[in-house]
Amino acid sequence: MSYKELSKEELQSTLAALKEEYNEICKMNMNLDMSRGKPGADQLDLSMGLLDVFHGASDLKSENGFDCRNYGLLDGLPEAKRMMADIMDVKPENVIIYGNSSLNIMYDTVCRSYAEGVNGSTPWCKLDKVKWLCPVPGYDRHFAVTEHFGIEMINIPLYQDGPDMDMVEKLVSEDASIKGMWCIPKYSNPSGAVYSDEVVKRLAALKPAAEDFRIYWDNAYVVHHLFEDNQAEILNILEECEKAGNPNMVYEFASTSKVTFPGVGVAAMATSEENLKYVKAQMTVQTIGHDKLNQLRHYRYFKNLDGVKEHMMKHAALLRPKFQAVLDKFDAELADADIATWTRPTGGYFISLNVMDGCAKKVVQMCKDAGMVLTGAGATFPYGKDPKDSNIRIAPSFPTPAELEKASEILVVCIKIATIEKMLSE
Amino acid sequence: MSYKELSKEELQSTLAALKEEYNEICKMNMNLDMSRGKPGADQLDLSMGLLDVFHGASDLKSENGFDCRNYGLLDGLPEAKRMMADIMDVKPENVIIYGNSSLNIMYDTVCRSYAEGVNGSTPWCKLDKVKWLCPVPGYDRHFAVTEHFGIEMINIPLYQDGPDMDMVEKLVSEDASIKGMWCIPKYSNPSGAVYSDEVVKRLAALKPAAEDFRIYWDNAYVVHHLFEDNQAEILNILEECEKAGNPNMVYEFASTSKVTFPGVGVAAMATSEENLKYVKAQMTVQTIGHDKLNQLRHYRYFKNLDGVKEHMMKHAALLRPKFQAVLDKFDAELADADIATWTRPTGGYFISLNVMDGCAKKVVQMCKDAGMVLTGAGATFPYGKDPKDSNIRIAPSFPTPAELEKASEILVVCIKIATIEKMLSE
Repeated sequence: MSYKELSKEELQSTLAALKEEYNEICKMNMNLDMSRGKPGADQLDLSMGLLDVFHGASDLKSENGFDCRNYGLLDGLPEAKRMMADIMDVKPENVIIYGNSSLNIMYDTVCRSYAEGVNGSTPWCKLDKVKWLCPVPGYDRHFAVTEHFGIEMINIPLYQDGPDMDMVEKLVSEDASIKGMWCIPKYSNPSGAVYSDEVVKRLAALKPAAEDFRIYWDNAYVVHHLFEDNQAEILNILEECEKAGNPNMVYEFASTSKVTFPGVGVAAMATSEENLKYVKAQMTVQTIGHDKLNQLRHYRYFKNLDGVKEHMMKHAALLRPKFQAVLDKFDAELADADIATWTRPTGGYFISLNVMDGCAKKVVQMCKDAGMVLTGAGATFPYGKDPKDSNIRIAPSFPTPAELEKASEILVVCIKIATIEKMLSE
Repeated sequence: MSYKELSKEELQSTLAALKEEYNEICKMNMNLDMSRGKPGADQLDLSMGLLDVFHGASDLKSENGFDCRNYGLLDGLPEAKRMMADIMDVKPENVIIYGNSSLNIMYDTVCRSYAEGVNGSTPWCKLDKVKWLCPVPGYDRHFAVTEHFGIEMINIPLYQDGPDMDMVEKLVSEDASIKGMWCIPKYSNPSGAVYSDEVVKRLAALKPAAEDFRIYWDNAYVVHHLFEDNQAEILNILEECEKAGNPNMVYEFASTSKVTFPGVGVAAMATSEENLKYVKAQMTVQTIGHDKLNQLRHYRYFKNLDGVKEHMMKHAALLRPKFQAVLDKFDAELADADIATWTRPTGGYFISLNVMDGCAKKVVQMCKDAGMVLTGAGATFPYGKDPKDSNIRIAPSFPTPAELEKASEILVVCIKIATIEKMLSE
């Protein structure tokens, strides 16, 4: 029965029972972590073969004959470019291979724009004001990058088919101080949103007031499907931008971080040849090149996109029951009570949970006091400020299934308590 | 006999013979590369064991229990910090482990200072003028970083015991726009200079007009000795700066790039705890962490500093004959003629050769036309401008011994021709 239909007395007695339950939980001194989108140990075990692909010195040459043990090849091995291009569904000539972190590429890209401008435009550090569009809820580390450079972030509602395009179109075309926009187009963090073809086409066709406006297309979950038979496909943004006469408007990012080992993989950027020219001019000052043996290792391990896809289905098989355990608990305990809504993602690493307005911080704090760490409430919004104090990011991948069941239970109890207390206070 | 004692006729006939020799060489269509400090394939083979240190998933945990296959540990594994600290002769708590490139750390450090300042000082991008001291001859990639950020570079003569300290002291204390200084304190690139204790102490005791002045101490060749019984030791700059009341004045850099595989190793920074605080505040926005498996791989392979030192002697054994081949040729062909001077390094990767003023560019071009690539003349100076057009960096590591003999021969012929032509034109 919906909590809204309960009398004050019924709410009070329910609350009393829940608080007893909560106190019992606290006594168990648990130590659970659902805070970050980290793969579980079982997922990491899937990629152990990655460490066993080389057989002797003669085996360490790139297909172009380059000895991967030595300096050189600034923008990556040809086979690594091909592999990352296939993953992103772009052309290899549009790809640069970087080090171990796509976040690092995004940071460096914003930093380059700040310090030296975009393809010859005025460096952002010389401007009074730079603004950025942030579909929300979104990824806290994105927001941290733009905040670090003093960029003013504007919240844009993110629906299940993409950001509010009316708002995006209006703002971008009117305000030349808007220089960029974060997008996670597939299985968005945390909502699992997948950008529809229409949204991608409208993004590609933007008419920005700023010539140095760029879409940061973080395709972090590009092959991270949860189901074999229900895989999201999104349009190729590079191609769409080119068709729409905006060939330089997008930087796309991806990595193997949740394909093989997080932080031990290969990250890449895809963008227009014109953009690449400027990127490489800076990159050649910054480094002699990234870890080519690790590029070769990944290529040898996967061989091609089919190898990657097959591998990702093994991840999915391990992740599905974890997502399901959380969803089952929510369905059983929260649906009837009608006190929260949540996403049912078909890929990615998160469930986005919305509790009653004004309750998210309290829920997260109560969980913490009970020994369970969640992503901080507010983290899914710029400046850590959720205007409704409602959104909580659930990351089911890292705990074991047993831990996850326990964690969901704690979470549900905390949500119920916080909700009733809020209702009673109003 | 010294060329200076030859008559004009003698010079002309010598030149004619040399030109014939040069023409013969050109006909051989050689393809030699002495341009960069790249280890030879024989050196790379020394580290193959690095790729074979892991045995199963249980073997991939750091000594603190952290699974190195997953996200986390922003500033590196404890054992990697200890290893890099031992290499640099500093304390582990002063060390951050980065990715595969110390050049990348230096770039990022300058970039951070440019974009956000140094420990809270005014960001350099907000200043009209930033200057930098550059001991010359020096490393072209250092100069490229400071040039990239529009920093005005000032040449400082580098002697065999370090930079001209009278000049450094005067400039740094008088000019608050001087914000930094490049130093390669041991086996400097390219001269092989080793900073004396007195020089290190005077550097540590500088009284900079700018509070955000920093010494960039690139200890790139810290364990790169050429001889077992003649190993340079330099003072610990962090310790000396602390003693002198300048604890935050230095950033030290090192990597395993020429210890194991270049660009596939582990790079590190060492600096004061106060500096680290600011570095980490930015780093945590830039990345979740660097490749921990590669850190673990290096630690497991070397175990400790003794392991590194032993390994470096294997490199030395391969490098010594290469250096010797070049020096022998110079001794035999250039010493008597008295037309060049060169260093006899006891470590590092280079021989610094000074030909007659106004001849370096011509020599490098002639070598190129004969099929041999040298580091560009001028590259060892800021902006690529050698005021005397005299210095040439010789990198003997990459060619095979046979190639090296041929290369030295070509070089000697080109030097002789350029010198005589210069003498005859005056």
